[in-house]
Amino acid sequence: MKVSVILAAGEGTRMKSKKPKVLHEILGRPMLFYVLNSCKHSQVEKNLVVVGHNKEKVCKAFEDEQDVEFIEQPIGDNVPYGTGYAVMNALDKIEDDDTVIILNGDTPIISNSTISCFLRYHEERNNDITVLSADMKDPTNYGRIVRDENANVVAIVEEKDASEKQKLIREINSGIFAFKGSSLRSALKKINTDNAANELYITDTLEILVKEGKRVDSFKLRDTREILGVNSRYELSIAAEILQKKINKEYMINGVGIIDPKSTYIEYGATIERDVMIYPGTRIDRKSVIKEGAEIYSSTIKNSTIGEDVIIRSSEIEDSSIGRGTTVGPYAHLRPNSHVGENCKIGNFVEVKNSNVGDGSKMSHLAYIGDADVGSGVNIGCGVVFVNYDGRDKFRAKVGDNAFIGSNANLVAPIEVEENGYVAAGSTITKKVLKGQLSLERAPQKNIDGWVERKGFMK
Amino acid sequence: MKVSVILAAGEGTRMKSKKPKVLHEILGRPMLFYVLNSCKHSQVEKNLVVVGHNKEKVCKAFEDEQDVEFIEQPIGDNVPYGTGYAVMNALDKIEDDDTVIILNGDTPIISNSTISCFLRYHEERNNDITVLSADMKDPTNYGRIVRDENANVVAIVEEKDASEKQKLIREINSGIFAFKGSSLRSALKKINTDNAANELYITDTLEILVKEGKRVDSFKLRDTREILGVNSRYELSIAAEILQKKINKEYMINGVGIIDPKSTYIEYGATIERDVMIYPGTRIDRKSVIKEGAEIYSSTIKNSTIGEDVIIRSSEIEDSSIGRGTTVGPYAHLRPNSHVGENCKIGNFVEVKNSNVGDGSKMSHLAYIGDADVGSGVNIGCGVVFVNYDGRDKFRAKVGDNAFIGSNANLVAPIEVEENGYVAAGSTITKKVLKGQLSLERAPQKNIDGWVERKGFMK
Amino acid sequence: MKVSVILAAGEGTRMKSKKPKVLHEILGRPMLFYVLNSCKHSQVEKNLVVVGHNKEKVCKAFEDEQDVEFIEQPIGDNVPYGTGYAVMNALDKIEDDDTVIILNGDTPIISNSTISCFLRYHEERNNDITVLSADMKDPTNYGRIVRDENANVVAIVEEKDASEKQKLIREINSGIFAFKGSSLRSALKKINTDNAANELYITDTLEILVKEGKRVDSFKLRDTREILGVNSRYELSIAAEILQKKINKEYMINGVGIIDPKSTYIEYGATIERDVMIYPGTRIDRKSVIKEGAEIYSSTIKNSTIGEDVIIRSSEIEDSSIGRGTTVGPYAHLRPNSHVGENCKIGNFVEVKNSNVGDGSKMSHLAYIGDADVGSGVNIGCGVVFVNYDGRDKFRAKVGDNAFIGSNANLVAPIEVEENGYVAAGSTITKKVLKGQLSLERAPQKNIDGWVERKGFMK
Repeated sequence: MKVSVILAAGEGTRMKSKKPKVLHEILGRPMLFYVLNSCKHSQVEKNLVVVGHNKEKVCKAFEDEQDVEFIEQPIGDNVPYGTGYAVMNALDKIEDDDTVIILNGDTPIISNSTISCFLRYHEERNNDITVLSADMKDPTNYGRIVRDENANVVAIVEEKDASEKQKLIREINSGIFAFKGSSLRSALKKINTDNAANELYITDTLEILVKEGKRVDSFKLRDTREILGVNSRYELSIAAEILQKKINKEYMINGVGIIDPKSTYIEYGATIERDVMIYPGTRIDRKSVIKEGAEIYSSTIKNSTIGEDVIIRSSEIEDSSIGRGTTVGPYAHLRPNSHVGENCKIGNFVEVKNSNVGDGSKMSHLAYIGDADVGSGVNIGCGVVFVNYDGRDKFRAKVGDNAFIGSNANLVAPIEVEENGYVAAGSTITKKVLKGQLSLERAPQKNIDGWVERKGFMK
Repeated sequence: MKVSVILAAGEGTRMKSKKPKVLHEILGRPMLFYVLNSCKHSQVEKNLVVVGHNKEKVCKAFEDEQDVEFIEQPIGDNVPYGTGYAVMNALDKIEDDDTVIILNGDTPIISNSTISCFLRYHEERNNDITVLSADMKDPTNYGRIVRDENANVVAIVEEKDASEKQKLIREINSGIFAFKGSSLRSALKKINTDNAANELYITDTLEILVKEGKRVDSFKLRDTREILGVNSRYELSIAAEILQKKINKEYMINGVGIIDPKSTYIEYGATIERDVMIYPGTRIDRKSVIKEGAEIYSSTIKNSTIGEDVIIRSSEIEDSSIGRGTTVGPYAHLRPNSHVGENCKIGNFVEVKNSNVGDGSKMSHLAYIGDADVGSGVNIGCGVVFVNYDGRDKFRAKVGDNAFIGSNANLVAPIEVEENGYVAAGSTITKKVLKGQLSLERAPQKNIDGWVERKGFMK
Repeated sequence: MKVSVILAAGEGTRMKSKKPKVLHEILGRPMLFYVLNSCKHSQVEKNLVVVGHNKEKVCKAFEDEQDVEFIEQPIGDNVPYGTGYAVMNALDKIEDDDTVIILNGDTPIISNSTISCFLRYHEERNNDITVLSADMKDPTNYGRIVRDENANVVAIVEEKDASEKQKLIREINSGIFAFKGSSLRSALKKINTDNAANELYITDTLEILVKEGKRVDSFKLRDTREILGVNSRYELSIAAEILQKKINKEYMINGVGIIDPKSTYIEYGATIERDVMIYPGTRIDRKSVIKEGAEIYSSTIKNSTIGEDVIIRSSEIEDSSIGRGTTVGPYAHLRPNSHVGENCKIGNFVEVKNSNVGDGSKMSHLAYIGDADVGSGVNIGCGVVFVNYDGRDKFRAKVGDNAFIGSNANLVAPIEVEENGYVAAGSTITKKVLKGQLSLERAPQKNIDGWVERKGFMK
């Protein structure tokens, strides 16, 4: 079985945050998610995440995740530090014939294709240990890969422990290793803290296995950006930019039109069909579905389903659904549990909340539709308010098919306007309106001559 | 006469779209537009666009374009494929003494200065064929320019047909050629499908002309990005980024202030005067005119004229005009046929549609002005609605100079409020208000003691 | 004393603007500000800015700036041109033992660390003149640093005056010099206009000092972007991008989460605490304070204080304050002098102006709160308008704790609703509402049977 050990106990002080480092998000997901995800897509069946003080928060963030176990690394004055110690805590869960990949939880760019190729190489060669290495223009701060005269890997030296000559080596240790389970177990028993940092290094296992005549090998990474380690929010922003480009490129290759990928933020996992057009400034979360031909301009879509050929301009949509051919915005807001039918118009400055709207209904401006069941073919005038709250309780309203609610009217819930019911502009309606009735609440209009002049308001 | 033959019959399956490839848009224009435009700006007087199955859609998209003819390339089992066959279909329209430039419809970055220089070079040298070549770091997938020991161009080999040695050549064929009309005609007769793809290659004409001792030459491109071919939506986004930079740079060089060119989307053709300031997130279409000193923040301007010193914040303006010194937004929407005078205020959450507004009028918040003629010096209160629709028909309203419409009032059209007319807050007005009258529709206010306590609403 | 002489008299015709070149802004500040600021942060105690025709506008823009003196350079037919002449005008303000740094006002990227290192080097070496040089890939248009066979700097030649051989030199003059005050004074007396441009060059002082056997030296710049001179709006946009990255990086390093630094515009000077999250499309001006844990999505914040854990979505906030835990937007607008308490809700399409709002109050939709004092625990319904303007004067309103204002109600100021007062939906309230009263202004609802059918509106 393929098993990963993911080191995620680091406190991440350079993030300068209350949040554990590996929970800092990129495109709506903790960075640890991306590491786990690449493992899972590489047939890694068991993922052992080593956590520390941050255990509770990290476990909670991934409680719904399959094939993941959290292992708490004791931290204190009496235990050693270092990557070697971190991995030791996971040994109980590892079988001798497992292939073990060790990664850091703060390298979110690592791709599944890299992990797959790396593990295949490791297994095909029947290696005891394989280190994922990379040639860096500037190797500063990385551990260096030391090779003998035959170009065989013989050791990894940390920057702190490297000689001046070793510091010139440009091939570096990515921090990612593959091991035979049995070799990992035996080598870990032999590492010690005899180094500049006084820590147990996982990297020391390599030299131990060399000395034991085991099969030690390296696999060189092509795109060195994949091992970018995130230690600060600045590095997080760089990782985010790389992932954003990668995700957006994949959508585009699959037929989604993205006008400006640099300012389009799509979370990994969103379902977006062909010929959808996404304009700059749009955010789409991973639970959303956007169907063929929809056009989204500068909007935020969360956990919502957007039908075919829908046009959404400068709006926010949360936990809702919109039927085929409907137009939304600019400047509209669908709050949770709004279900709008086909060929509707939700115009500017309109809010819909916890409501159902039938096909072909229009609410073109400045209206609030809350806690309502609105039929099809309904016209909701400008400024209409569904009055759903009396200061203590909330109530629902019902408006039948083809009803017409005049401008600035209030429908005080609980209330019903039956089909083809008419409410006059400016009316506050508290009692049921029957089919085909006109309902109005209106005082007579009075025009007072000369009032403006008498008040001195004449211009 | 200079004539272009533009190959635009490709299906573009990698776009994964219902839309023909050359119609995919960059900054509001089909990519074919940019190729045509660069030709026209290089004194090419006749443009022959070779189309295929997509004929109808492509022709329709360019029906208003001058100096363009569409030629349908037969497609089927009985006709050959390839660029050579595509060009053959255009031969009828080409005279022997024409200079013919052949381009692909999916290379939108090609500049008019490149085409001009290329054609001038071709004509000055009296060449029979000139190929536009370029040195590529990675020439993979391009046809290679084969030269003899004297560095004369002798052939072009496609990647598929290239020997291993030829694959090392880094000078590539851009796909752009200039021909003498007569030489093109004679050489095309001699090409055949004896190649890996079993197609008629236009590139084979070069070797034929070499063998006939004709003047064969090449012209090397400096900026290789200009020949970027767009085959997927990902490549489309790259082309869009390049064109966006180029267009924005030109505006900036001419005195337009663009805070962040990366997130500013100006369509080729928009008229923008000096000292206009454009803030990030703004889209301006090609039919818009923005006059000196205007400031546009995060807004969308379509087919509209924006006067001097106008300030528009986070708003959308369509098919409208705005007079000097007026401020708009944030979050306002001018729908088609709105004409707003000078020094007006269109405030937050205000919609104007199909209306005229005189100078110095203010509608500061949450109002809808639809189908109205509003005079100058008018004050439209917060929440005012011009009720223009009775469920069947639309009507217009008229408001005279210096009138005052109180908050949350409804003006039920057809209606007129004469100059200096006053409408009280909360009134629904259905009858004409004369000059200097106060009009109100109001019931008496009743205050009921102890009601809140009796209802149990006291907090 | 360290003294700077900053050349800011240039007209900047390539900016194509009415505004003096050095006043063109980057992230809300004139570019001259950044030069001054880097000087001040390098212990330069006196800054002499040489201005020309633009004097009045430039002085006004910096009237509040400390340690800056403006010196007018006479311009006309009878005075010479050139950098040498510009500096001459500042000589009166310079002492012999001053260290003088000369810079251009249009190089806003120059960092204080560069200036500090440069001046330290100059002073430690006891140089008479030190030129800040840089190696350029393309040195075109720059003055070249000429060295003798011992690699000592011996002259600077302008592009116009350079020989073909000198044009090959890639080490260029940044235009930034350090001088001993006495050496500057003596050398300036000896320069002349004997050159291609017929101007007095400050660069000629170097050769003069070489000939006099003075200590002449250079200091080489690492990051050549720092000396980017801004001559067009295009170059301004490049400078802006560099500064934006630099400022955003610093905030991120200090614990501020910035999702996409490319589309986040923070002015130099804004106070932003740790664990603030800033989403794309946000602008924050330099006078704003954003406290720990706040989240800002696509919003504009000007001169405002945003409390801990506040969430602001797609909104604009000006000259206001928002208390801890309050949520704002999407699409809300706080106009100047709005002070909102803790745990409030300012929902979509809500405008607040010149008002105080107590803790825990909610105004969730489509309301205008202007010139009001609103208590805590208040509920302002949808569509409510604080009617503060009668066409001539503005008045204030007061709403007591736990009051409830029903939807689409108008509160006509001056007005008071006492604590626990209730206003019914759709009411226009002109008279005081006492504690615990329900106030309503309402006509009886009339339902008219068959009206819709008779009108022919039945569908």
